[in-house]
Amino acid sequence: MDAGAADRMITLISDFGLSDAYVGTMKGVILGINPRATIVDICHHIEPQNIAQAAFVLDTAYRYFPPGTIHVVVVDPGVGTKRRAILLATPSALFLAPDNGVLSYVLENSPGSQAIALTNPSFWRSPVSQTFHGRDIFAPAAAHLSLGTPPQHLGEVCSQLTTFRIPRPQRASNGAVGQVVHIDRFGNLITNLREGDLPEASLWIEIAGYRIPGVSPSYTEGEEVLALFGSSGNLEIAVKNGSAASRLGATIGEKIILTKRQSEAGNAK
Amino acid sequence: MDAGAADRMITLISDFGLSDAYVGTMKGVILGINPRATIVDICHHIEPQNIAQAAFVLDTAYRYFPPGTIHVVVVDPGVGTKRRAILLATPSALFLAPDNGVLSYVLENSPGSQAIALTNPSFWRSPVSQTFHGRDIFAPAAAHLSLGTPPQHLGEVCSQLTTFRIPRPQRASNGAVGQVVHIDRFGNLITNLREGDLPEASLWIEIAGYRIPGVSPSYTEGEEVLALFGSSGNLEIAVKNGSAASRLGATIGEKIILTKRQSEAGNAK
Amino acid sequence: MDAGAADRMITLISDFGLSDAYVGTMKGVILGINPRATIVDICHHIEPQNIAQAAFVLDTAYRYFPPGTIHVVVVDPGVGTKRRAILLATPSALFLAPDNGVLSYVLENSPGSQAIALTNPSFWRSPVSQTFHGRDIFAPAAAHLSLGTPPQHLGEVCSQLTTFRIPRPQRASNGAVGQVVHIDRFGNLITNLREGDLPEASLWIEIAGYRIPGVSPSYTEGEEVLALFGSSGNLEIAVKNGSAASRLGATIGEKIILTKRQSEAGNAK
Repeated sequence: MDAGAADRMITLISDFGLSDAYVGTMKGVILGINPRATIVDICHHIEPQNIAQAAFVLDTAYRYFPPGTIHVVVVDPGVGTKRRAILLATPSALFLAPDNGVLSYVLENSPGSQAIALTNPSFWRSPVSQTFHGRDIFAPAAAHLSLGTPPQHLGEVCSQLTTFRIPRPQRASNGAVGQVVHIDRFGNLITNLREGDLPEASLWIEIAGYRIPGVSPSYTEGEEVLALFGSSGNLEIAVKNGSAASRLGATIGEKIILTKRQSEAGNAK
Repeated sequence: MDAGAADRMITLISDFGLSDAYVGTMKGVILGINPRATIVDICHHIEPQNIAQAAFVLDTAYRYFPPGTIHVVVVDPGVGTKRRAILLATPSALFLAPDNGVLSYVLENSPGSQAIALTNPSFWRSPVSQTFHGRDIFAPAAAHLSLGTPPQHLGEVCSQLTTFRIPRPQRASNGAVGQVVHIDRFGNLITNLREGDLPEASLWIEIAGYRIPGVSPSYTEGEEVLALFGSSGNLEIAVKNGSAASRLGATIGEKIILTKRQSEAGNAK
Repeated sequence: MDAGAADRMITLISDFGLSDAYVGTMKGVILGINPRATIVDICHHIEPQNIAQAAFVLDTAYRYFPPGTIHVVVVDPGVGTKRRAILLATPSALFLAPDNGVLSYVLENSPGSQAIALTNPSFWRSPVSQTFHGRDIFAPAAAHLSLGTPPQHLGEVCSQLTTFRIPRPQRASNGAVGQVVHIDRFGNLITNLREGDLPEASLWIEIAGYRIPGVSPSYTEGEEVLALFGSSGNLEIAVKNGSAASRLGATIGEKIILTKRQSEAGNAK
């Protein structure tokens, strides 16, 4: 790496929370190897061991970081078992994570990516604990990559990464059916429906016994319970000055049904 | 900006919490524009959409940052409506926020400040979402300002910013009446009374049915329920090794009454 | 300090939480003195005024930071009283803290360290508040040290620091008795037993009415309630995909008893 080139920056996602020293310790290890490293916390409040949630949060965030950023995702119920530790190199970024499905969205979006198993012990802390590969394997790998170490030095090319089935909406002639995939701090219900999934016509949106007459342009326009496209491009259900999760009693997995309005259904293109 | 000059640093206040990727995403956008940016979190646990609380927290913090710091405050229930996005330039700092009153304290303290509406789309992310101007308008503006872009490039001078009525104590001949304006993590009740508001004499402090005989010098001296001047210069009510909020059952808005002690009231200057 | 030498980095531990501006304010003060300072949060969710917990969290974290790191620990129920503010210089790091026992583990591990009372007002913020020495004394001290100010400039050498009795396991001919000293976010019960405390034989581990047949290599191998050596080298009790704290109803201080298995007890070396 040129002397003048900026280091790659490093982001962290984990289920460690912030009431222990785990996150700080990972940063200490990174900065011991690269004292100039720029480290950004994306989220450490993933539910303990919730791989699907971590995968979704990563998917909503990674595109907003500079090209070449190193994203470290440590939600790792299998730590200490034979599950592999992986580096995934895509055209736009590097990802470090256990091979447990947490990169499922990234893999689907970047089909030509290269995966490397982190098998080279020269890039591990020594000794490696049985319970904290975030500190002993992923943090040193991130630090070395941020300094310009080529990915292939860290281990061997590998394939057939673990993925889970990403929940996708089902389209029908008269609409589509999706589900809630995330609930944010405001209680907004974020669904897996995106703009292209919606019929090109006025529609009804049904969820948890509520029926919403179309998509609003902001959180303050429309009915009290309203639907709008959120910052990740996904359709979300919100309540004016309140929490949709509480009002609707909805949780992750709740079904959402879009249907063209009856009077217009006959005119659909 | 000279090559040798340090960049302006950036602080963040929001109601985003830390369980979603919103804060991390804003940092990604900032660092994509200025990879050297120094970003400091002041607080992301403002109650959802509580503009008055965010304004108070900002007021207690901003003076402790270096001159020229850029403070970004995103508590923004009106995002996506016609409310303006504002840059306020005071002699000591720059503030980026929605025009919803969150800068009320700053405006009162810096009457000669200049406000600019962030109307120049060259400094926005594209496309701008309807729901996350923190990422799409405020973060890029902060990043460009940190690199030395002059404020007036970001939009047009504007006036008549939105403010709310800051709760002020009422002074009387025999004392003063104030209220609780913030409760911190320790349960300390922080009031709007400052040193100049107190009578120059021994006094009784009454709140929530308790009567406290004067101001203590520290959290461990005085009665179990005690009053002292806190780190922001405001009078606060504390309980030794405990939470005043729990013990007194008090919430934001609770009245606090100062009166000169009877035997001395006649001698007051 | 040479122009080319990297600054010492600064870590922060406190009981301030993240819902007030206290932590951000300390960072503002540090960066006002050293704009290049690297600041890492270790943990701000120490229970209010829990000195023993802060001491333990510090002990599990500080070894993972580069030599010379400045660790600032502000859990300070005696702020504003005559308790001293201390700088402890060990061969590997610098520690800034109130003299209330929070450095007990560090002192035990680094017997030849030098302590300095932070009595030189040239290195304080002015005025010094009665309630927030984190901002007014410790933060400026850390910033000046990070720039290379020699420790002895900050005050006078002092001795007889306050310590508390660190809970140590009791060894017996047939086993050992320890206790739970920390509970992490996952509900893992972290004990004060380390590898050297365990008998060199198969053993029973008893805690809160459960009996566990030996030490597992990972969180997913062994019985549902299992014991393993955690990332700090301490024996911890975990539950597969669950919380040991909830399952066992255990809290800090819970007793843990190790005994050699009966059939092998006679063969012990």
